Order: sequence, then C-alpha cells, then structure tokens
Amino acid sequence: MEIIKDIARLRERIREVKKKGLSIGFVPTMGYLHEGHLSLMKTAKKENDFMAISIFVNPLQFGAGEDFEEYPRDLARDEMLARSTGCDLIFSPSVKEMYPTGYGTFVEVKKLTEGLCGASRPGHFLGVTTVVTKLFNLLRPDRVYFGQKDAQQAFVLKKMVNDLNMDLEFIVLPTFREDDGLAMSSRNKYLTPEQRKEAAVLYKSLKQARKLAVEGERNVEVIKKVISDIISEAGHAQIEYIEIVDTQNLRSLHMLKGECLIALAVKFGQTRLIDNIILEV
Amino acid sequence: MEIIKDIARLRERIREVKKKGLSIGFVPTMGYLHEGHLSLMKTAKKENDFMAISIFVNPLQFGAGEDFEEYPRDLARDEMLARSTGCDLIFSPSVKEMYPTGYGTFVEVKKLTEGLCGASRPGHFLGVTTVVTKLFNLLRPDRVYFGQKDAQQAFVLKKMVNDLNMDLEFIVLPTFREDDGLAMSSRNKYLTPEQRKEAAVLYKSLKQARKLAVEGERNVEVIKKVISDIISEAGHAQIEYIEIVDTQNLRSLHMLKGECLIALAVKFGQTRLIDNIILEV
Repeated sequence: MEIIKDIARLRERIREVKKKGLSIGFVPTMGYLHEGHLSLMKTAKKENDFMAISIFVNPLQFGAGEDFEEYPRDLARDEMLARSTGCDLIFSPSVKEMYPTGYGTFVEVKKLTEGLCGASRPGHFLGVTTVVTKLFNLLRPDRVYFGQKDAQQAFVLKKMVNDLNMDLEFIVLPTFREDDGLAMSSRNKYLTPEQRKEAAVLYKSLKQARKLAVEGERNVEVIKKVISDIISEAGHAQIEYIEIVDTQNLRSLHMLKGECLIALAVKFGQTRLIDNIILEV
Repeated sequence: MEIIKDIARLRERIREVKKKGLSIGFVPTMGYLHEGHLSLMKTAKKENDFMAISIFVNPLQFGAGEDFEEYPRDLARDEMLARSTGCDLIFSPSVKEMYPTGYGTFVEVKKLTEGLCGASRPGHFLGVTTVVTKLFNLLRPDRVYFGQKDAQQAFVLKKMVNDLNMDLEFIVLPTFREDDGLAMSSRNKYLTPEQRKEAAVLYKSLKQARKLAVEGERNVEVIKKVISDIISEAGHAQIEYIEIVDTQNLRSLHMLKGECLIALAVKFGQTRLIDNIILEV
C-alpha cells in the first residue's frame, strides 16, 4: 500500500495502473475510518483489481462555524485500518495541493441541493461536488463507492455523474450501524457517553416510521410527528429537520408514494448527526 | 470517419479506441467549420493517433436575445470538410441528448469570467465550461485544441482544466485570419458585403496597438484611444469593449506590463465580432 500526498506522483501511479488494464475501485473519505468506510473499501477491493481511497478533510464543504478544524484526524490509525482491507493506495493531499492560491472552479448541482442538509448547510454540497469531481479526475476510477448514510450526498453525486457524463459506475451501499442502531459516523466520537446512549433514538424513530408505513399509514405529517416524539424522548436532542421526500427529486411529499426518503438531522449538544431510510410504498 | 449522435454509441467507440492504446486529439466546435477549425483539426490529427471533433451548438452558452436559433448550421458541408482533414469521428448530439429533461449540473470558473465577454454575456462562460466538461468526459481526449481567437474562453477553460485536475493537455493555436486580417469566425457569414469589408479595421487596430507598444508606448488609455479611432473609421462599427488586461488574471491594466491581452468586441449591425492579440512587454 502506497500513501501519496502529491498530485504529480498520484498521476504517475494511476497511469501505471491504467496501463496494466487494471480496474480501479475508489472510496473518497475524510478519514477517521470506521466500519462503514471499511465495508465500502472491502466491497471496492472485491469488485476491482486495484482499490484506492482518499483521505481529505475538505474545507470547501464546511461552513463558517462548522467543525472543519475539530474534525477528527488520525492518519496512522487510518493507515493501519486501510491496510487490513487490502487497500492499494491512500491519496492524502494537503489543502494547498487541492486548492492552490487562486483556485476558482466550482461544480454545482442545482435543485437537489436546496432542501434537507443543503438548506441548513449553504455551500456544503458545492464543496462536495467540487472536491469529488477533482478526486474522480485524479483517481480515474471505474467504480466509486458511497454510503447510504449520507443519502442526499449520494443522490447529488449520482446526479452530477450522470449530468456531466462521468464514465464510472456509482455504487451506494447500505448504512453500517452500531449494535443499538446508531449509524456509524466519524462524528459519533464527539458525543458524551450520555448523548451516545440517547442517539439510538434516531434509528429507533426511523424503524417506527417504516413500521407505520408498512401497516398502511400514508400521511407524512402523522409519520413525522411519531418520529419527532420518539426523538424528543432524548433529553439532549435538538431536531434540525425531519423530512420525507421523493427520491426522484428530493421534494417534500404530503403523502407517501413511490420511493420515499425519510431523512433527519438532529443535534446532540454541538454534534450534528444525520440518518435516513428509504421506503418503497 | 464515423458520425455519432448518441452517447451510448460514443462511449462504446471511445472504449475501443482507448483499449487499443491510441491517443485521442479532440477539437470541440459549434460546426460551420472554417479554416480556423481545420487548422486545429489538422494539428490534432498530426499529434494524435485518433482525431475527433464535436459539432454542437450549445444552447447553454447563448443568452436571451442572442443568436442561438440563427447560428449557422450545415452538417453535410462540415462532414465533407472534416473528412478532408483525416477526422476519425464526429460527435454531433441533439440538445436533448446533452441536456435531458431535469438536467441540473453546472461547472463555473469564477473571476476570470467576470470581465471582457463575460461582462456583456452573463452566463456565457458557465455554458461553455459545463458543455466542455461533458465533452471531455465523453471523448476522454489526451489533447484538446482551441483557437486563440476566443482568448478569454481559452484562459477560462485552461483554468478549469487545471483547477479540476482534468488529465489532458490543453493546446491553444494562433488565430486564423482572412487575407485582410479579419479573424475567421462562423459569424462572419452574417456580415453584409459592406460590413465584411469594414470589419478589417479590427485587426488593423490591433496591429497598430502592437506597433505603438513596440515603439515604447505603455499607457493603456493612449493605446485604447488609437484602437477606438481606427475602428470608428468603419461606419457600421459599434464598439462593445476594448480592454487591455493582464493574462494572469484578466484584470484591467493601467500600464502595459508583462504579458498583456488586448481584446475587443465590436458589433457590425447585429453581428458581434471579437478579436485579440497578446503582447509581451
């Protein structure tokens, strides 16, 4: 496994891999790897000849007052974990390598980025789509792997790949969860023991929503109320949003219909967690 | 030479070419080919194993009230001309193929797009950078060729290629001119015989500007006045802008210094023509 920090060396290495006709599976990450990342990486390894990840905490996708500086970083630990999955290459550039002085090109997906996390984190998805375009151009993957946990991100990036005719296969894998159902996230590390325990209400509320839908409930307001009530059992939870949207366009629904995304963002203290499920009714 | 209209077939063809290890030279055009295009194509043919062009009048780069509908089109003629240069592939998609219903992803270069043509054609460069990104992703060229005539376009696209880490060589070739110096352009076809004759003042004024600079003149206002006076000799000319900018950032200069771009846009009736020269002082 090679760890590469500069673009010139990365290009060289990727050219060698391409010349051999090897397929490349790529998992972009912000590091501080957890089981969710590792499951993406293992699948990428299995489905491709060469498996690469990036570790880059991308300042462009963090807003003012967000946790860019505090975002957990531990490259030595990530390196060890990556090795265990058979990772062939870690690309871990500096901010300056990715955004040199005078940087000025941005990739934007409209509409899909307006609601949900896009509404509370203006500019966030512009940062995501821009850095992912750069990483795709650098790594030139045949297949890329993202987690369902960041559902809106997956929809937005899939739209970008299609709209811009990027020649790669976009794969979304299920959310990896702790035993109590909490979605794995590098940000879980911020939680106090009490908050961590309470955070299980998120998935609990989503499971209850699914149960109601299966039993025939179609009224979105009713389902949102049930979710909200369950989350409110946790004393530290502050709900940012609970939304039920059509997966085609991420627009709010009044009644469940077709493929629906139930997504939520909830703060525990300063820590913002997201989770979601997809239902077909 | 194959003419391809749909993306699925194009992908197939490009994969075959790549599999053989052939290098691809690509010239994006809006068709109605002239000697300027042909010179780009001939160079692309010489420098690569496989030469492709696109012919696509891109609605996204035309503003309201601009000449999208009237832009000259003649695919049969273009086909014949392309064949004469040894072109291997013409990609000539429909608007619907490039921008299906619900299309929503855009690539934007900031700052460099604010002045010159960007100021008088808001949204123009957003359309150019978006379509060119799509075409690069579809054709996967090793080398791409643009004309110096569209100077700002070349600077903007070069910036995009660098910023987004697109893995290709960006080549700009000199402006091709008629015998009287008029820069070749598909839009020259719109000119009445009288306007066509007058339009030679554009290059005449730029040559005079170069002469002054060589003789030691450094004051931008003085040079712009001389250009303006020469262009005003043409009765039908309406000056849109005459600008002298630093090629590093396309910002206006007060005094000539370093590498300078002298660029102008002038209307003859409804026909808007552009031209430019680059000076090193």
